[in-house]
Amino acid sequence: MTKRVYNFYAGPATLPLPVLKKAQEELLDFQETGMSLMELSHRSKPYDAMHKEASQLVRELMGLSDEYVVLWLQGGASSQFYMVPLNLQLKGKPMEYVNTGVWSKKAIKEAKFYGDVNVVASSEDKNFSYIPKDICFGDKAAFAHITGNNTIYGTEFHQWPKIPNDIPLACDMSSHIFDKVIDPKLFGVMYAGAQKNLGPAGVTLVIVRKDLLDRVPELTPTMQKWKTHAEKDSLFNTGPCWAVYICKLSLEYLKSIGGVPAIEKLNRKKATVLYDVLDKSGGFYKGHAEKESRSLMNVTFTLPTPELEEACVVEALKHDMVGLKGHRSVGGMRASLYNAMSLEGVQKLAEFLKVFQEKHA
Amino acid sequence: MTKRVYNFYAGPATLPLPVLKKAQEELLDFQETGMSLMELSHRSKPYDAMHKEASQLVRELMGLSDEYVVLWLQGGASSQFYMVPLNLQLKGKPMEYVNTGVWSKKAIKEAKFYGDVNVVASSEDKNFSYIPKDICFGDKAAFAHITGNNTIYGTEFHQWPKIPNDIPLACDMSSHIFDKVIDPKLFGVMYAGAQKNLGPAGVTLVIVRKDLLDRVPELTPTMQKWKTHAEKDSLFNTGPCWAVYICKLSLEYLKSIGGVPAIEKLNRKKATVLYDVLDKSGGFYKGHAEKESRSLMNVTFTLPTPELEEACVVEALKHDMVGLKGHRSVGGMRASLYNAMSLEGVQKLAEFLKVFQEKHA
Repeated sequence: MTKRVYNFYAGPATLPLPVLKKAQEELLDFQETGMSLMELSHRSKPYDAMHKEASQLVRELMGLSDEYVVLWLQGGASSQFYMVPLNLQLKGKPMEYVNTGVWSKKAIKEAKFYGDVNVVASSEDKNFSYIPKDICFGDKAAFAHITGNNTIYGTEFHQWPKIPNDIPLACDMSSHIFDKVIDPKLFGVMYAGAQKNLGPAGVTLVIVRKDLLDRVPELTPTMQKWKTHAEKDSLFNTGPCWAVYICKLSLEYLKSIGGVPAIEKLNRKKATVLYDVLDKSGGFYKGHAEKESRSLMNVTFTLPTPELEEACVVEALKHDMVGLKGHRSVGGMRASLYNAMSLEGVQKLAEFLKVFQEKHA
Repeated sequence: MTKRVYNFYAGPATLPLPVLKKAQEELLDFQETGMSLMELSHRSKPYDAMHKEASQLVRELMGLSDEYVVLWLQGGASSQFYMVPLNLQLKGKPMEYVNTGVWSKKAIKEAKFYGDVNVVASSEDKNFSYIPKDICFGDKAAFAHITGNNTIYGTEFHQWPKIPNDIPLACDMSSHIFDKVIDPKLFGVMYAGAQKNLGPAGVTLVIVRKDLLDRVPELTPTMQKWKTHAEKDSLFNTGPCWAVYICKLSLEYLKSIGGVPAIEKLNRKKATVLYDVLDKSGGFYKGHAEKESRSLMNVTFTLPTPELEEACVVEALKHDMVGLKGHRSVGGMRASLYNAMSLEGVQKLAEFLKVFQEKHA
């Protein structure tokens, strides 16, 4: 029998088993074409239909209006770090960022190649353990940028900052896209590397309000413009077909279990199960994030000593729970509870942590 | 039973059946990790070992020295069209290109964003039906660029142009990488979108001579520099893990059947089988490419009328041969005979074409 473990990696991360099974089943013969999806021309009808369906599922599950285009790009969120300022810049206007951790910093670094950047709020003073409140973007900004969830620190925006009229808000949603219901109209640009909460590595979902596509300077290499990809429905060149396909299966699965409202409910339950263990551990497990900034997706915590942390990770492995070592910026442990992680997996981890504490406290 | 057809698409294209079967077999559980390869952290040991093996196979099969780095990037050859001039430019020196078709033109277009471009030779006068001879690159060029095989027109370089001392030659090998033995030392940069002759869409193999990594202007966004990726063994950010994995399986398979010398022999045999049908058809099937420029990979030809061409494509479909419609720039038909296409498949097509001619001549 095929072995399967509980995978708490921060990304690439666990995928729904029915998605993997479907991909496995039709790997040699996609929809009776006699070819693998990987072998299909990106200009063929069966590929095109699948590709359009993937975009349609994004629209439907997110409640997107026709004002937005859905793009499937390559290069990860790391490429969007330069594509966002390149495509949204306005001469003489500053670009405004909130700094909530490593990924924000990387985004800020790339924006500086394109003009003046204001960092209007930061939580660096407390090792990014919280989401700043009362963020004030200026009304002269070309655009505003936030990182919606911070994988490394385990913090997440639960209230969106107020934005002055007409200033587009760009949000890196790599580690929380589809984790909870959002109002897409609040955003000008939403982007997400797929490999955390959507699908496999190798594709980046980018959603752009159409009126923003024309800002990009004319003398820009073709592939760097969102507009190029928007005009060709992300088929200007050969895209990451397999990764789009797995995203499509994943979105279909999300729809089948009730869409974003249902998964939000489940995500809140999962997070509660695990945070409860931390909160009731009498300080044995110490959460890194401040309570009201806690992420639904990445639960970060430390133990009394580095030795205990290592022992806990090793012991968890023996119980088929993998990927629990924390990022070096925070240390300790991290459990990623993305949409594809089952409640059963989280309950198993919670029970394990309680027992581990009893043994070692 | 799983249905399989003969897939003559120009790309994404057919893959070796043992590669697909292996991928299917371990899709739910990669090397007893209990996870799909798609679910593995790109920082995990099993992923890293696979990734390194893929690069090592490229080195071994191509006979690369330590002077070269092997990169697995995203964005397709279309992104290399701007990354090549961006990364190889030298202030005040022209960039020199040979124009052998649509893909060369696209590369030339992107280079113009970075400086002066000289097109030193072109075959546009005869709808790109040949590879120019006696190409003369200037000795003041920053670099020289060619498209090694022209998928649309069915032409291929069989002799590499002479390059003045120290001028690096960059070659788009997207549709012929690993089709025949080459001397890699002739090239400064070799790049290939994987989806034709190497693996699935979504990854681009880029091989760069290390001394060329330092040319890129300092004030360049991080992801646009080859150097960024070279320094981190293509793991600066999360790469297209699944696509790298399929390339690795594909390279392993190539090695198992005797490597590049063996596949070259087979490719020459396959091409001969099909070109013979054209040459012996008394003009019924008219090859687009001049004989000495004929591609081993893409065989392009026309029939007496567009109606016959359509009938031939439709009839072929009934015999489980797909993807034979020619590109609109040439019209007619195109059969792509990449490494993964079997001799049996080409023989079947050759027989079919003979019978079709007998019926319709």
